[in-house]
Amino acid sequence: MRIDVRKSVLGANDEQAQRNKALFEASHLTVINVMASPGAGKTSLIMRLLEKLPPEFSRGVIEGDIASSVDADRIAAVGVPVTQINTGGGCHLDAVMIDRAMYDLELQGPGYLFIENIGNLVCPTDFRLGETAAMVVASVPEGDDKPIKYPAIFARADAVVLNKIDLLPFIDFSLSAFTAAVRAVNETAPIINVSCTTGEDIDAVIRWLMGMAPDVKQ
Amino acid sequence: MRIDVRKSVLGANDEQAQRNKALFEASHLTVINVMASPGAGKTSLIMRLLEKLPPEFSRGVIEGDIASSVDADRIAAVGVPVTQINTGGGCHLDAVMIDRAMYDLELQGPGYLFIENIGNLVCPTDFRLGETAAMVVASVPEGDDKPIKYPAIFARADAVVLNKIDLLPFIDFSLSAFTAAVRAVNETAPIINVSCTTGEDIDAVIRWLMGMAPDVKQ
Repeated sequence: MRIDVRKSVLGANDEQAQRNKALFEASHLTVINVMASPGAGKTSLIMRLLEKLPPEFSRGVIEGDIASSVDADRIAAVGVPVTQINTGGGCHLDAVMIDRAMYDLELQGPGYLFIENIGNLVCPTDFRLGETAAMVVASVPEGDDKPIKYPAIFARADAVVLNKIDLLPFIDFSLSAFTAAVRAVNETAPIINVSCTTGEDIDAVIRWLMGMAPDVKQ
Repeated sequence: MRIDVRKSVLGANDEQAQRNKALFEASHLTVINVMASPGAGKTSLIMRLLEKLPPEFSRGVIEGDIASSVDADRIAAVGVPVTQINTGGGCHLDAVMIDRAMYDLELQGPGYLFIENIGNLVCPTDFRLGETAAMVVASVPEGDDKPIKYPAIFARADAVVLNKIDLLPFIDFSLSAFTAAVRAVNETAPIINVSCTTGEDIDAVIRWLMGMAPDVKQ
């Protein structure tokens, strides 16, 4: 007898993700599942976005890491509510972890919740968390071929943010090759080029977020 | 009843890894399991090393990828025997995949075989392939805190290569913080700083490899 463990795990996860999604909607929260390689700049991008979101929105962060609270400490230092999930070796977040984290966070909308997934372009792909939208962050030093090598995660992105464009003069990276590689697997997601170091074009990500703004008048 | 699937999977993998190791030793092959984040420069480093290894050694590459043959094509273009493993979503290579790949490669020693694992700092950690040594490649743009966030893979490294040091002037990265973070989990692995773009200090990696050279006289 062969048991399809993977299918059953994903099915249970999807059910919890649906419950999370219902809770997020009832709480007037727009929730972004932020996925990327290690070191692409997920935390830096989230910090830039927290800073630039209009003040009428509440905000919160769930930080996923294998180990350490380095990223959560950075978020907490700017006074934004944050809760840390340490997976202790697990290569992605799942919907049950998010359910538990929400008890700690006690975030009330209307507002934005950012979930920083584990740095990994493979494992987080199939695990829905109940998010409003999935954002994949790529970065210039990783190379323009990443969407070819990791197609599934780019295919599922609702937005692709290309970070570290301030490094373009120093690195062999073709913006048109990157765009073509994304478009080969994803025809619709906006591709937004930014630098979290200089702040360039962070506003374009804010505009994308505002397009999904929860209702401020409750 | 709870079945410890993980333990049983790893046990079976370890047994095949032992068989691979015996085969590698009998074939006078020094085998390097190259692990890193996506875009850290694994393929570029392997290409630099292939170029600089003394000519008396044979050489070969096993390329692991989720999808595509981009990296294998780069290796094949310089005339080195290469075989591609596409995991189709799997987040790491395992010992059985290597066993099968060796049938395709037909590599005879004395020589060096490089196995480029899936770009991932989590999943490859526990899966031994039968390698002589594990090399973890980090890169400057990923940040100096990666060993804190992904301790297990740095703990198991026999060598840590820090790539893209040509970008140090443009990025906020502390070499001493990185070294301290590696040393917190790994007291012995050499830490070798290189640039695959400029070729700087590739020779230091060659020296480390030569310390494990297989016997040329058979």
